[in-house]
Amino acid sequence: MAQPRLKHFGWGREGEGITPEEEAFVWARIRERFRIDEFAEVKPPRLDEIELHPPRVKPPTSLAPIASTERYDRAAHTYGKSYPDYVRGLLGDYAAAPDIVVYPRNERDVAAVLDWAEAAQASVTPFGGGSSVVGGVEPRIDGLGRYQAAVTLDLRDMHRVIEVDRTSRAARIEGGAFGPALEAELKPHGLTLRHFPQSFEFSTLGGWIATRSGGHFATLYTHIDDLVESLRVVTPRGAIETRRLPGSGAGPSPDRLLIGSEGILGIITEAWVRLQARPHFRAGGAVRFPGFFTAARALRAIAQAGLYPANCRILDPQEAYNTGAGDGTAAIMVLAFESADHPLEAWMARALECCRDHAGELEPAGAADAHREGAAGRWRNAFIRMPYARERTIERGILNDTFETSITWERFEGFHDGVKAATEQAIRDATGHEGQVTCRFTHVYPDGPAPYFTFHAAGRHGGLIEQWHAIKSAGLDAVIAGGGTVTHHHAVGRDHRPWYDRQRPPLFAEALKAAKRALDPHSLLNPGVLIDA
Amino acid sequence: MAQPRLKHFGWGREGEGITPEEEAFVWARIRERFRIDEFAEVKPPRLDEIELHPPRVKPPTSLAPIASTERYDRAAHTYGKSYPDYVRGLLGDYAAAPDIVVYPRNERDVAAVLDWAEAAQASVTPFGGGSSVVGGVEPRIDGLGRYQAAVTLDLRDMHRVIEVDRTSRAARIEGGAFGPALEAELKPHGLTLRHFPQSFEFSTLGGWIATRSGGHFATLYTHIDDLVESLRVVTPRGAIETRRLPGSGAGPSPDRLLIGSEGILGIITEAWVRLQARPHFRAGGAVRFPGFFTAARALRAIAQAGLYPANCRILDPQEAYNTGAGDGTAAIMVLAFESADHPLEAWMARALECCRDHAGELEPAGAADAHREGAAGRWRNAFIRMPYARERTIERGILNDTFETSITWERFEGFHDGVKAATEQAIRDATGHEGQVTCRFTHVYPDGPAPYFTFHAAGRHGGLIEQWHAIKSAGLDAVIAGGGTVTHHHAVGRDHRPWYDRQRPPLFAEALKAAKRALDPHSLLNPGVLIDA
Repeated sequence: MAQPRLKHFGWGREGEGITPEEEAFVWARIRERFRIDEFAEVKPPRLDEIELHPPRVKPPTSLAPIASTERYDRAAHTYGKSYPDYVRGLLGDYAAAPDIVVYPRNERDVAAVLDWAEAAQASVTPFGGGSSVVGGVEPRIDGLGRYQAAVTLDLRDMHRVIEVDRTSRAARIEGGAFGPALEAELKPHGLTLRHFPQSFEFSTLGGWIATRSGGHFATLYTHIDDLVESLRVVTPRGAIETRRLPGSGAGPSPDRLLIGSEGILGIITEAWVRLQARPHFRAGGAVRFPGFFTAARALRAIAQAGLYPANCRILDPQEAYNTGAGDGTAAIMVLAFESADHPLEAWMARALECCRDHAGELEPAGAADAHREGAAGRWRNAFIRMPYARERTIERGILNDTFETSITWERFEGFHDGVKAATEQAIRDATGHEGQVTCRFTHVYPDGPAPYFTFHAAGRHGGLIEQWHAIKSAGLDAVIAGGGTVTHHHAVGRDHRPWYDRQRPPLFAEALKAAKRALDPHSLLNPGVLIDA
Repeated sequence: MAQPRLKHFGWGREGEGITPEEEAFVWARIRERFRIDEFAEVKPPRLDEIELHPPRVKPPTSLAPIASTERYDRAAHTYGKSYPDYVRGLLGDYAAAPDIVVYPRNERDVAAVLDWAEAAQASVTPFGGGSSVVGGVEPRIDGLGRYQAAVTLDLRDMHRVIEVDRTSRAARIEGGAFGPALEAELKPHGLTLRHFPQSFEFSTLGGWIATRSGGHFATLYTHIDDLVESLRVVTPRGAIETRRLPGSGAGPSPDRLLIGSEGILGIITEAWVRLQARPHFRAGGAVRFPGFFTAARALRAIAQAGLYPANCRILDPQEAYNTGAGDGTAAIMVLAFESADHPLEAWMARALECCRDHAGELEPAGAADAHREGAAGRWRNAFIRMPYARERTIERGILNDTFETSITWERFEGFHDGVKAATEQAIRDATGHEGQVTCRFTHVYPDGPAPYFTFHAAGRHGGLIEQWHAIKSAGLDAVIAGGGTVTHHHAVGRDHRPWYDRQRPPLFAEALKAAKRALDPHSLLNPGVLIDA
């Protein structure tokens, strides 16, 4: 893998970024939105300008071959990709940098790191691709003297596809495998995991499982949870290996306790995952609706019809405009069926009937590959490329972030309006200007959608984190008060803790803490994530 | 509900049983199988002949209105419906009878019972319909003096459908609701849970959730797990209520820790469940295959095609013969699609192509309602009626039982042969005669089937439990050695503990024990189920 290393600041790998054309598009939208021509600009420090505290511990000789205290390694493992992460990076604040980054090659290394960390009283932060947007990979030592140092455990060197079972369509893959690499290894077998979160290129199987990542499929297999057949997890007390089972009823699912545990119970070193045959048949297109709620009603009909499209995202008119998928007058549904087995005319025809019942009209493009062209293609491109824009927009004080949730259908419309209004008001209060709040659905279920909110505001250097916090808090307060979840697929980390703590039943918190004490008695792993250390 | 009470011995309600015609069919099959004409016969004691120890505790005055120490209540709550339960009932062994049975009317009653049980040092056994086949509802006091008495908590008076949300297709239902009653309440709304375990008439929503029950749908929504939107559970430390969420990524799922907890963590008092519109469209039939493995290969193709039939069970030739669904020369697939939304020709046509690719031929019947007639209908009838036969066959010392598992496709054929051979050998060893071991699939997944084994042997009164135990142990030893799960949907209870303990990762057991200590610190609930008290 002779690809460039991941950036220490920004999205993706060194040398990657948005093109001048993309940047022009983004700035045109921003100028139009805020009617601002001039932006104060702050530049992030170069790597060699970043100041890091001296490492507080030294790795033992036995771990020296896999340990680094190099500037790049420490800086690149200080943050994830959340908005406040970018702000602190912009300001050159790297106080949270790990003392040491270790790159285990196998489970023995992982166990050795955990043993040493216990002896050294070091916290251990598991790290996959570092794409967390919730403060999930930031090293921590509390102020109480419990931890003397912070170690980040990066799984990137455990990236093998170990076994492929073509008959059962499953593969055993190491936790540190990045999306593109694992797909490349599955391709010769005619198989694919087809789990494509927005971070696909820069995130790992273990990270997806630890955070209950949401992927490509808008219905049915929405989360990685459903694609996990079994797990191997190394805890400070030893390894847990679950059986490869297509289904089971033997007590509470061990996998389901570990999936979503965000690194606080153990390190996911391997998983057997369920694969698909690569799709040959496709049907799809973009459907225009007079409004977001009519599109939502059509989508409810599709979700409750048992048709299970691979894609059926809807964008509100403003979000369609912002991404280039629409002209701002219509909501857009990106609809696609795919199959390795059979033609999809009957499925697509019925879904389009559901759309027409709610005034939805298929956009002309019409070809079988419409989902790669036209409005759907433009949206898809924006989805993949826009994360690169943020490292540029933040230099000029633009506030933009997202939060995502799920809610049952009968509450959706009022919930949407309440969350949007609260977030818009918070933007006005925090910045003194009108901002913009848009919504799309990323996934849908028979009993409700997963709405995904994006906000844009013109911020002020020197106050960006406070402004961001006020806006995001108002949105999440409304989400929690309205009955939603603090996160549908972005995870909890530390940033979502205040709302997660309100959502999570208190006695479940106690059960989870008890489980953590059983597996991580010295609380080495990810202190402060999900529960208090 | 002026229906007769549940039998204290046998399947179903008082007055119910197999018809003379059904009994003649059963005995013809048994005589043919074992070439035995005469069977020693033992009759179970009448209710008034059963000896019960005097209750070791008295309910407090406040609970007196909902508590019973009557002979019927205590006898009818001594056992579930496992084979050794029947044997002990036949022998009049009611030593395990609870001291008191309480019938809470609401959550306050449940909490009051738990508080009193703690003070009285009584174990508490949650009881739904009592259809456990794994020793899950038998009251226990250990021999170590930890418990002074045993209280059974029967949820039958908490059976309301509290709310129906037609928009999201969900309903909030109390844990003690029996299958037919909850379906009757949903019907006027045009909705159905469509969760039909074999015990449907005599089991409850709370019981289904506590045991990860498997239902009607052979693909996709196979377990009740998938139909649970949220839960209310009363633990000895208070109530846990989870949010109604179509999907979530906020930490490990609280629901998934409680689903399958088999009463050891708390009492499931309410759940929001996901419903379906009642199906209007159906397509289906019975497909004959030259052998069980060819049928399995066809089913793998269907399961991996993304067609999601509601039913696609296969029976091996002997099981087809035993249930009247076949003549013993062919394996039978019972195939059915159903939808409230759209005609199913395209789905059925493709599934039949998968069958033809593996030499499967659709049986003539052919009509749209073929799944209710012909081979499929005969199988379905046997599925519902045969549990009534056992209370008759056991009187004559017939050994018959089932065990069920799941396994990935690539291991299935060798696994099947190994489990079958081990069980057949154990029958020979235990009884000195040839027996019979048959297999069907109850549910299928893209990565593997859920095989369900049935065995028949001619036993000997006086040694039935030992013979049963030797046979079932041999089968489950082979299941666990072969990589399967000890149970796909029958639960663990106490009977499956030795194999569950081998299957379950030891550190997960420790996490589960820790969670139990957090929620049930005095270990009141279901001692010995899933984990040691």
